[in-house]
Amino acid sequence: MSHPQQITLYTAKASPFAHRVSMALEEAKADAKPEWFAAQVNPADKVPAITYGGPDVPPSSPSSESTKLAESLVIVEFIADLYPDSNLLPKDPVLRAKARFFIETFTAKFSPRSFILRNEPYQPILDAIAAIQDLLPESGMWAVGDAFSIADLNFAPLYARFKLTIDSGLGMYEPGKDRELLNAMADPKYAKFNAYVAHLLERPSFKATWDEAYVKAFMQVRLARPS
Amino acid sequence: MSHPQQITLYTAKASPFAHRVSMALEEAKADAKPEWFAAQVNPADKVPAITYGGPDVPPSSPSSESTKLAESLVIVEFIADLYPDSNLLPKDPVLRAKARFFIETFTAKFSPRSFILRNEPYQPILDAIAAIQDLLPESGMWAVGDAFSIADLNFAPLYARFKLTIDSGLGMYEPGKDRELLNAMADPKYAKFNAYVAHLLERPSFKATWDEAYVKAFMQVRLARPS
Repeated sequence: MSHPQQITLYTAKASPFAHRVSMALEEAKADAKPEWFAAQVNPADKVPAITYGGPDVPPSSPSSESTKLAESLVIVEFIADLYPDSNLLPKDPVLRAKARFFIETFTAKFSPRSFILRNEPYQPILDAIAAIQDLLPESGMWAVGDAFSIADLNFAPLYARFKLTIDSGLGMYEPGKDRELLNAMADPKYAKFNAYVAHLLERPSFKATWDEAYVKAFMQVRLARPS
Repeated sequence: MSHPQQITLYTAKASPFAHRVSMALEEAKADAKPEWFAAQVNPADKVPAITYGGPDVPPSSPSSESTKLAESLVIVEFIADLYPDSNLLPKDPVLRAKARFFIETFTAKFSPRSFILRNEPYQPILDAIAAIQDLLPESGMWAVGDAFSIADLNFAPLYARFKLTIDSGLGMYEPGKDRELLNAMADPKYAKFNAYVAHLLERPSFKATWDEAYVKAFMQVRLARPS
């Protein structure tokens, strides 16, 4: 494969989906220009998006000659393809399938928005945690096999925002429900999941791309309770 | 890569998701045992699913030593990985990303169920067709580049069932709406899309795995109007 061409990432720090792409670029040690799209170009446009290749132009006026890609899962697989040394995609097809199944599972099941935004019951969050835990290998610290992969990468930004929201008591749920949920999550039956996410959020590519203060400030505005 | 191990497919002929896996196995010329799960083992279980590897056992009692995989998109990528000569995954990372984006697009937008099952407006179907058409290459007969790929494969079973349903006047929509929709779809502005799907449904792997009479009979029962 030829040397990867230039990548410009259009992103927004608060978005977990954009965060995935920042993490993937960090894992790949890719020389990408990140653009804080929301602040600079057009806050209504969808992030993350990337341009790939084409002439060297200012990010505010992308060239028609570059490839434009959107959708975080698609972009993350693309970066994993471009940078095979990142090992973001397991080499073994079975592990690769398990990584994709892990992604399908948390995408379908882990949706804390209904609790956070609409005060619906939090039980589905616990059910999702149980389902994700069931997929974790007995002794492994990562989602599949014994190495960090796209499965871990795509989950980390979602989980970090969920955890930050609940830990900060932010959300439209009934006051006290956050503590109730945190207590339920601390149950020893979720020990494997809790060890996994603690380890996950220590991943250097996560820490290098996570601006907790910024995200918290964003959520404080977005999730302000009507007074 | 070592020679692929034995594959058993648990399937149901009526399911478009299971049909994807049958097509992928056909494209890969894989020597898989298909099991008509719905009829034989447990109709409530999720199809498609595959077992991969492990000892040679009867499909009705899968071994704990085989790998179990579910989710059609995951299984299709797995088969494409196992059988690279099938060329189901484009070699070029950009085309591969475009194939995955095509899949994301029709998965998110093409959902005729609300019209067929609940008599909701059909305009979203036309919008989805326009969005899919926008992604088709100017001169190509396939979704991306100039070769059949997972993008085409995953769309064909969905589109075929939609078309069969409307062509047969099956569904809970107001009588006459099927003709209206078919007329709207025949508009020359959708010519590129219509040429694409006509070509798509001629793909030998589709034809070899499509039992129209069976699917129609199934839908006639499922979509019978209350009398």
